[in-house]
Amino acid sequence: MGANTYPIEEWVITEEKFLKEWNYRNETTFALSNGYIGTRGTFDEGYPFTVDEGLEGNFINGFYESEHIMYGEWNFGFPEKSQSLLNLPNLKKTKIVIDGDVFDLNQGEIINYNRKLLMKDGVVVRNVTWKSPNGKKVVAEFRRLVSLEKKNIMAIQIKLTPVNFSGKIELTTYLEAGVENHTRKTNPLIDYGPYGKHLAVKELKAEDNYLLHKGKVIHSGLSMACGSLTKCEGVIKNSEVLEEDASLTYELSVEEGKTYVFEKMIGYTCDFDIAEDKMIDFIKDELKKAMDLGYDEMEKLQKKHMDEFWSKADIKVEGDEALQQGIRFNLFHIMQSAGRDGRTGMGAKGLSGEGYEGHYFWDTEMYVLPVFIYTESELAKQLLNYRYDTLNQARDRAKILGHEKGALYPWRTINGEEASTYFPLGTAQYHVNADIAYAFKLYLDITGDDEFLVDEAAEVLVETARVWADVGCFAECKDNKYCICAVTGPDEYNAIVDNNFYTNLMARENIRDAKWALEKMKEIDKDAYDALVKKIDFKEEEIDYWDRIIENMYFPYDEKMQIYPQDDGFLMRKPWDESKIPEEKRHLLYENYHPLFVYRQKMAKQADAILGMLLHSNYFTNEELKRNYDFYQTVTLHHSSLSTCIFGILASQIGYDDEAYKYFSQSARMDLDDIHNNFYAGIHAANMAGTWQGIVFGFAGVRSNAGYLQINPKLPSQWKSYEFCLQYKGSNLNIKVAEREVEYTLLNDCELSYESLGEKIVLSKEGDKYVQEI
Amino acid sequence: MGANTYPIEEWVITEEKFLKEWNYRNETTFALSNGYIGTRGTFDEGYPFTVDEGLEGNFINGFYESEHIMYGEWNFGFPEKSQSLLNLPNLKKTKIVIDGDVFDLNQGEIINYNRKLLMKDGVVVRNVTWKSPNGKKVVAEFRRLVSLEKKNIMAIQIKLTPVNFSGKIELTTYLEAGVENHTRKTNPLIDYGPYGKHLAVKELKAEDNYLLHKGKVIHSGLSMACGSLTKCEGVIKNSEVLEEDASLTYELSVEEGKTYVFEKMIGYTCDFDIAEDKMIDFIKDELKKAMDLGYDEMEKLQKKHMDEFWSKADIKVEGDEALQQGIRFNLFHIMQSAGRDGRTGMGAKGLSGEGYEGHYFWDTEMYVLPVFIYTESELAKQLLNYRYDTLNQARDRAKILGHEKGALYPWRTINGEEASTYFPLGTAQYHVNADIAYAFKLYLDITGDDEFLVDEAAEVLVETARVWADVGCFAECKDNKYCICAVTGPDEYNAIVDNNFYTNLMARENIRDAKWALEKMKEIDKDAYDALVKKIDFKEEEIDYWDRIIENMYFPYDEKMQIYPQDDGFLMRKPWDESKIPEEKRHLLYENYHPLFVYRQKMAKQADAILGMLLHSNYFTNEELKRNYDFYQTVTLHHSSLSTCIFGILASQIGYDDEAYKYFSQSARMDLDDIHNNFYAGIHAANMAGTWQGIVFGFAGVRSNAGYLQINPKLPSQWKSYEFCLQYKGSNLNIKVAEREVEYTLLNDCELSYESLGEKIVLSKEGDKYVQEI
Repeated sequence: MGANTYPIEEWVITEEKFLKEWNYRNETTFALSNGYIGTRGTFDEGYPFTVDEGLEGNFINGFYESEHIMYGEWNFGFPEKSQSLLNLPNLKKTKIVIDGDVFDLNQGEIINYNRKLLMKDGVVVRNVTWKSPNGKKVVAEFRRLVSLEKKNIMAIQIKLTPVNFSGKIELTTYLEAGVENHTRKTNPLIDYGPYGKHLAVKELKAEDNYLLHKGKVIHSGLSMACGSLTKCEGVIKNSEVLEEDASLTYELSVEEGKTYVFEKMIGYTCDFDIAEDKMIDFIKDELKKAMDLGYDEMEKLQKKHMDEFWSKADIKVEGDEALQQGIRFNLFHIMQSAGRDGRTGMGAKGLSGEGYEGHYFWDTEMYVLPVFIYTESELAKQLLNYRYDTLNQARDRAKILGHEKGALYPWRTINGEEASTYFPLGTAQYHVNADIAYAFKLYLDITGDDEFLVDEAAEVLVETARVWADVGCFAECKDNKYCICAVTGPDEYNAIVDNNFYTNLMARENIRDAKWALEKMKEIDKDAYDALVKKIDFKEEEIDYWDRIIENMYFPYDEKMQIYPQDDGFLMRKPWDESKIPEEKRHLLYENYHPLFVYRQKMAKQADAILGMLLHSNYFTNEELKRNYDFYQTVTLHHSSLSTCIFGILASQIGYDDEAYKYFSQSARMDLDDIHNNFYAGIHAANMAGTWQGIVFGFAGVRSNAGYLQINPKLPSQWKSYEFCLQYKGSNLNIKVAEREVEYTLLNDCELSYESLGEKIVLSKEGDKYVQEI
Repeated sequence: MGANTYPIEEWVITEEKFLKEWNYRNETTFALSNGYIGTRGTFDEGYPFTVDEGLEGNFINGFYESEHIMYGEWNFGFPEKSQSLLNLPNLKKTKIVIDGDVFDLNQGEIINYNRKLLMKDGVVVRNVTWKSPNGKKVVAEFRRLVSLEKKNIMAIQIKLTPVNFSGKIELTTYLEAGVENHTRKTNPLIDYGPYGKHLAVKELKAEDNYLLHKGKVIHSGLSMACGSLTKCEGVIKNSEVLEEDASLTYELSVEEGKTYVFEKMIGYTCDFDIAEDKMIDFIKDELKKAMDLGYDEMEKLQKKHMDEFWSKADIKVEGDEALQQGIRFNLFHIMQSAGRDGRTGMGAKGLSGEGYEGHYFWDTEMYVLPVFIYTESELAKQLLNYRYDTLNQARDRAKILGHEKGALYPWRTINGEEASTYFPLGTAQYHVNADIAYAFKLYLDITGDDEFLVDEAAEVLVETARVWADVGCFAECKDNKYCICAVTGPDEYNAIVDNNFYTNLMARENIRDAKWALEKMKEIDKDAYDALVKKIDFKEEEIDYWDRIIENMYFPYDEKMQIYPQDDGFLMRKPWDESKIPEEKRHLLYENYHPLFVYRQKMAKQADAILGMLLHSNYFTNEELKRNYDFYQTVTLHHSSLSTCIFGILASQIGYDDEAYKYFSQSARMDLDDIHNNFYAGIHAANMAGTWQGIVFGFAGVRSNAGYLQINPKLPSQWKSYEFCLQYKGSNLNIKVAEREVEYTLLNDCELSYESLGEKIVLSKEGDKYVQEI
């Protein structure tokens, strides 16, 4: 691991050598997805890696196994059923036999090798020149994409050129359905995630050039189908259907110097989308359509989607190509990971691995969604739709937690039900409710999408707010301020605390936004308002109580230090003495220390109060932010991948430019350089998105929390310039920050008024520019 | 259930009817034990009760199964192996066939029936006159005891008198080794307690009049043996050894009007006491010795032990026979439940059932030990020996919790290792450390046993104190007072709190006592002191730090209410509104509400701060106690069986005599009247002991916390008098409190000086009396 694992290239990630020890991590680097299906960057020829070396992974977003969970001690409200993103049959594998020798990089001679993630194209290409043990030299090109055009399809193309021989090449394409998740293999104490095979084969066949499979998940009862359609210049020599595997073998007579093309379309679907009895036909159909287009055409369509994405979301940096590469790598991965059907969310690890069981967390709302809201608002809306889609589950959950009204979103989930088996770091993180509300409100603020307010957002804002109005109380011993006890904030090193600053702040804003939403809805669509009030049995008195809370929310405050402690008990905890922690244990506290030991230390794993202050920076003076930042700098260990990007943004705001740049740099290449040493398990989607935030909210100082768009751009001294686009209420603004100036260009005919460095700017027409000194 | 389930009798508990629906509870009522073996009050003839109707239970104290525990999410320091008191083979069963009809109370006619626990004798006797379906009438007497004289033995005698026939009676005695615990059968989500059969039969035989068995516990690997020796006037007709069962059948030709006696000695042992290969011989030997004595002689020996016990521990009450009965029932059960070999403790449910997996809790130290310390100090010492015996496990546990020095006792355990699978209500209850220290100190104070101080107590006091000196810190934000964060106090409805009043108080006293112990030890045995200091690497600076803590312990205090809140956050929690809780759920909060819901309410399950104030009442004025009592009265739900007895005692002290009596009454008959509706699962040992405390510490106002013996007797207006004995530093004092006076009688030649109602009293010789007005 370590810095610059891959050569520095603006638009490409290149693996230059085939090294077994880097395989596991590279499988994540070269993972591809379209938000519906995802596949890890394993090799077409298929290697039998152990659980420590690799993981063949193919997933459908939101498709899971669900099992009875055993607890050391079960308590009321603990989830009784797990949800685990299920690893699905693999169809990528193609065995290639060159005149009797199996194409296998562990034997023969590798004359030339590279694998590239082409981020502009959305494609992974591998080029290998290989000499077989028998001296047969072949040039092979493997191309792969997961289609952004056709959600069920991934496409593969293999080109083979015999260099020094004419003879036979055999290609066998497989469908391997005897698949198991890795989860739990390494920790036998956790009754979590599926163990062993969980997909029962219901149908498995090879017909013509198809391999087809239908399977049923043993406990969740969900069904899926998958298949492949291959096109090969040779003839089918053999077709085999075993209990769990099927294969088709093609034989080609090849001539020296000629290039032979093999194409494979792979499709997946599941019964969330298609009735079980129609799945196989559907897959065949989709495969045929894709094959009719052909791989090259599929790649062209892919490029079109990528161009569109980059035109909206790219950030160009002049002056640091390594960071430029990191930014694009991060944007590429979050773009491809997001569910876009309104029924699925985005896993903390995207669809790049089994990490966190494929669960959706607050990461989506607080880290990823701001990026999409400002760049790809349709994608943002689909992710919000997923939360609306699971509002009823959140209502049920609120009841389980003893709230008579409202909705409480789960800490981690796939299907909308709480899947956290450890409530101190799970269900106790009530802030997820306010985080989701925050994302809805941000979406409304930035897009101005009133229809969405009426159709979905108001209901979510009100139902989440209601839980906040029930969870706490006005405490006489705290001057009748509204206190919220026994929650866990974002910081996972301080659990079950009273008056977590972040939580109280976000809760207040959740309530404030709910009130705003109701008022606005009443104004713009009285009928819809009345219908909502009736549907959720909303009472006018609730608003009065909300007002009292908004006015009287309690925040822990230390008079002497003039800072907001993270929670009521934070300053009483034991001063953190890292010298007592052996170095190898320092980054793995929960792996090496009892939770109670961790809870008792005056330190934080990650940004907590600081995140709240950043999101609602309008309530704080820069002096206040500085004091708090200085304090939290001394107590934050940044053991979470969600931490440094946030500190970096606030550092920018308060003028700690060097620190801001340092934090930004760490965030931008965190995964590419595998700084947390666990990239093999999947991407850190939140931090990846945090990189974009680091530039846009950090260096460019973009805010909307005052109710309008504010920009306060700076140029890091290390850079020559940077440039990006923002969408704001229909307008599309290009922002280029250079050495002494910022140049604003409106890209469409939609008037935009905003504030830059305190100056009010209005741009009206496509091409309107404004240049300002910085 | 309900009041007066059994007729009111001073020394006897009588079951007047055979009712299947009362069976499960009666099995606990008539359970017998000697602290080593225990057996539930099941019937000799053996009924096939379902898991909801009954539980055949036979136990050896400290003999357990241990299995790998699965967690929803395992964290560092969570116990990896369970400890579950194992249900052992049953040998009580004797099938009786009366001229072809099986003696079975479900058929034929019950002409006369009663079963009595004779508390004076330590024996259970059942008398039945029964007419078989064929009209054969028989008078049967079943007697049973678990020997206080011979720890391995329980003895049974059955007398049969054919009333209206001469003919054949067949008696079959069984050894049933295919035994299973009930635990977990009713809650499949908890991976806790053994499921299925766990004792593998290693040897099983019938030879002569013996049935013998040796078994090995599948996972813990522990071995045990058991057997029976029967004596019958008839001849052996059959002997059978199956896979898991063995039996011997006797046939008797009986004559009308004659009485036939059948005796059975049953023995248990295990490899904690006897080498595995010697166990069977040992059992045979013990059985033979017991049978040589014969049942009647065993009963005489039993009576001798009981007489001795009652002479020291009985409390005579004139004026309320129901309470008198309750007190004796309670004393009887705690006496028989206590481990007395220094290797075993006392389960929260004694040996009367599988409840709490047979684990030992703080109940022993805080509730039971004060009783024994004042009445049966040798028994008390053996229970303390058990804690000393497991000090190394507590040292290991402290390290796991991140403490560099010291010992942390487990919340629940059999073998000395933590067995709590749910740390918020388990390991977080650090107060257990101070509770154990408290019991050691109380023992030293009351017995004056300096040898024990030197040999064991000082080490325990110092090692427990060291954890207190590490767990907290002097917090600047609290005026540099010593704060202890993230613990759970005794009250299980408020978990993971900061500065639990009880914990901080007990911790301070633990440290104070440790300092005292070291000083005293230095004074009386310098060599031993030096050895200890060396052994535990004790540094002089530790005392300095201790002094700072003793001087500066932080206690939450509410200026306005002038009370000590239970913890820092207590007063901020939501006012408890019981009207929102459906009545059937009110006493089962954790069964019906998520822990977080419970934590957030301003209410307590049980005495917490109040218990601390009681134990250390010397630090508080009566006014303070009153204010706090008044406050905690309003917020305590008494959902724990450990609560009312404590409130009652404090009520006595502050002159709330009616309340004191009410609480006492509830405590005294709690189990006998099955007030918590769960007596079937086993006795509530702590509350049973609390009854004794209610009289001695409550009505009689006995205290030793000022450093000497204080007595402040009152007579409840409902009573004519009460009388009990106390041991104090070798003296044996009888105290009789009557209507206007208290009479003190010294029972031995050991001078005793104490304070009664503020007056200093000295009694010097056996028979010395002092009468004082009250």
